[in-house]
Amino acid sequence: MHTYMNIKKLASISGDFWDVTDRAGLFGLVVAGLGEGWHRRADDGHEFVNMSSYSYLGLDTDLRLVRAAADEVLSEGSLNTSTSRMRIRFAALDDAERALSEHFDVEALTTASCAVAAWATLPLLASGLFTEDVAPVMVFDKNAHFCLNALKAAAADEAQIVTIAHNDVEALEQLCKEHPKVAYVADGVYSTGGQAPVKELLRLQEKYGLFLYFDEAHGISTLGRQGRGLVLEELGGRITDRTIIIASLNKGFGASGGAIFLGPQGSDERKNLALRNGPLMWSQRVNTAGLGAIKASVALHATEEFAGLQKRLQDNIDLFDGLVQTEQSRDGLPIRFVEIGKEDATVQLAQRLLERGFYASPIFFPIIGRGRAGLRLMLRANMTRTEIETFAGLLKELRDELGSAGTGAWAQAGNAVGAGAERR
Amino acid sequence: MHTYMNIKKLASISGDFWDVTDRAGLFGLVVAGLGEGWHRRADDGHEFVNMSSYSYLGLDTDLRLVRAAADEVLSEGSLNTSTSRMRIRFAALDDAERALSEHFDVEALTTASCAVAAWATLPLLASGLFTEDVAPVMVFDKNAHFCLNALKAAAADEAQIVTIAHNDVEALEQLCKEHPKVAYVADGVYSTGGQAPVKELLRLQEKYGLFLYFDEAHGISTLGRQGRGLVLEELGGRITDRTIIIASLNKGFGASGGAIFLGPQGSDERKNLALRNGPLMWSQRVNTAGLGAIKASVALHATEEFAGLQKRLQDNIDLFDGLVQTEQSRDGLPIRFVEIGKEDATVQLAQRLLERGFYASPIFFPIIGRGRAGLRLMLRANMTRTEIETFAGLLKELRDELGSAGTGAWAQAGNAVGAGAERR
Repeated sequence: MHTYMNIKKLASISGDFWDVTDRAGLFGLVVAGLGEGWHRRADDGHEFVNMSSYSYLGLDTDLRLVRAAADEVLSEGSLNTSTSRMRIRFAALDDAERALSEHFDVEALTTASCAVAAWATLPLLASGLFTEDVAPVMVFDKNAHFCLNALKAAAADEAQIVTIAHNDVEALEQLCKEHPKVAYVADGVYSTGGQAPVKELLRLQEKYGLFLYFDEAHGISTLGRQGRGLVLEELGGRITDRTIIIASLNKGFGASGGAIFLGPQGSDERKNLALRNGPLMWSQRVNTAGLGAIKASVALHATEEFAGLQKRLQDNIDLFDGLVQTEQSRDGLPIRFVEIGKEDATVQLAQRLLERGFYASPIFFPIIGRGRAGLRLMLRANMTRTEIETFAGLLKELRDELGSAGTGAWAQAGNAVGAGAERR
Repeated sequence: MHTYMNIKKLASISGDFWDVTDRAGLFGLVVAGLGEGWHRRADDGHEFVNMSSYSYLGLDTDLRLVRAAADEVLSEGSLNTSTSRMRIRFAALDDAERALSEHFDVEALTTASCAVAAWATLPLLASGLFTEDVAPVMVFDKNAHFCLNALKAAAADEAQIVTIAHNDVEALEQLCKEHPKVAYVADGVYSTGGQAPVKELLRLQEKYGLFLYFDEAHGISTLGRQGRGLVLEELGGRITDRTIIIASLNKGFGASGGAIFLGPQGSDERKNLALRNGPLMWSQRVNTAGLGAIKASVALHATEEFAGLQKRLQDNIDLFDGLVQTEQSRDGLPIRFVEIGKEDATVQLAQRLLERGFYASPIFFPIIGRGRAGLRLMLRANMTRTEIETFAGLLKELRDELGSAGTGAWAQAGNAVGAGAERR
């Protein structure tokens, strides 16, 4: 018991984080959307811009996607077929999956969410169904997203589980030498900053046949040619048959649900195995609204305009990096962690920023170590130069003002737990 | 290893079922919706009515729900807030959950699917967070839906797991006598027919404090006053604080996603625990289309018209039971299993029915025992009298014709596995 999780302990450790943030009015904001990352609070009408939105290209409020979603619902006259997708499915589902498969040059399936994509594939991978019927040693990166972690117990009923230090290629290579089949489970872009050493991992794949399993929730759309993400970009756009990528279609992509890239186009056997032996059979699909948005978003991904959005995102990242120094500066990814230090100073800072029109997520123990609190920011293509400059100015002003105000009153004994309270 | 699952074995055992059904053209039908359970195939234009649709009240094509879905997307101008619901959420999410909470007199949360609702609560229940911090012995009904089964390994990392025979109240009572905390995990209405002995379970709850966890995917909307389902109906509409119900909002309810009924309205502590310590934190929400449909469906549930739909469903069940004898006859539930016997006769029957305009799901080993194949039917309020009578007539005619044609060629050695290949 408690080999992979200890929910009660996690709840007790992280309770303060939630309570404090909640009391500070930084959780549970109920809003109307104003477009371009702006929101209006339902209670007091206060307007603010979200500096921690994962819609990296601003597609969540792109009216073409929004209209495509509404049109699909109306033209199909239903949200779903009311029977398993294995039996009867709307053409929109086939069309959306075909469009994804062709655009990313993979065999793609859609799921209700990225977490469901993980549930639908990780235990199957562990069972050996994708590795010549031999269960691989399942090696998890310590920082792999919580939805992957949460499946360790299920995977452990099918295979041996090993957790290694973050990006520890050396430990992974050692395991490849010791075991005939090894699968590595990691994020492409980590929601807490940084990325997987994809090149080195591909070297291990080539040398040892290592199976690679990536969560690209933050990489797809954001990075790579036509939004193919970090991993496919490193692969030159050609996924190998020993690689599975799962992705969110609800973040950079701007639609709904998740996706599984099972391997090269035409990986029919693997597709059948995935559809017949897990949650894909009984879980809900993306509804027709989401499917409409997916089709519209794929079409947009192939355009020059899309390349322009990626460029604007990179320009905004550069602009921000020039104004605010972080550990992630110049890594080309859109996630930034601004360390403040004391927990209460961080919460006060976030409160003051919100008053002045900027929502920035405060993050502290147990997500990161005690006394290392800060703000997690996510840059977007549809932030204006003025928004970024004003925010950076305010941040400096308020940090100077509050920098030494913290007492860390609720930061008492104990160490950070690896599991993480809120990772995405 | 393989204490709770053996995916590779399941895949090998169920492969024939999938292959045969697939080859027979009874899987993977790609269609356009025509309303009222009718579909048109995309390839050959063939039109048929779905006799195995879980939209028991016909709400999936109710134009008021469809329009509400499209309107919500357009008026919000987005499918999602692009940040955790814990931080910023649209008023539509609050409104939908408030409407559900008030209508069912429970504390309701929405999730991306019913399976996600299970993932978001079962491991937490096992951890003891809902039972005074003492991990309960988790007792699963052998026939509990596959999405509950699939969480056994995760629950086993938090608590002791016991699986008992279907509806075995005696065994459950014995466990209640032996252990201070026990939780029972079951379906309200079983997707394979039949229901939980709710009255007797409530007696155990009263006597021993038994925690009850029900999957009401097929019960909500279909049964009970204003669609409150089997369990809440038995409870006189008042959920106890030792009961959790999960439900689909995508079946009888006619919208998208799933719901968790955490306990009585105002169960704030449990709500916070659920939101902070599991998939609710990072999983996607129902998109705004689904939220619009949920609000419209709740409103419909409170009307006389809705009571009329429930009555029409019961009338159709009675009509069917008068024409076709099944083991489930007169149980008041909408799911019927018509046993044919031989596997190939069943598939041929389903093929002929489809040619004649009726889709009926063939079900055979390993979902049920070898040589006991048949059709799983689901009755709907929006089936016409003529449809039911024509179908029953055809069924009789074709059964007489094909009854002894089967050779059971692909039904070879081995016994039925409890896990089931496709249960919902």
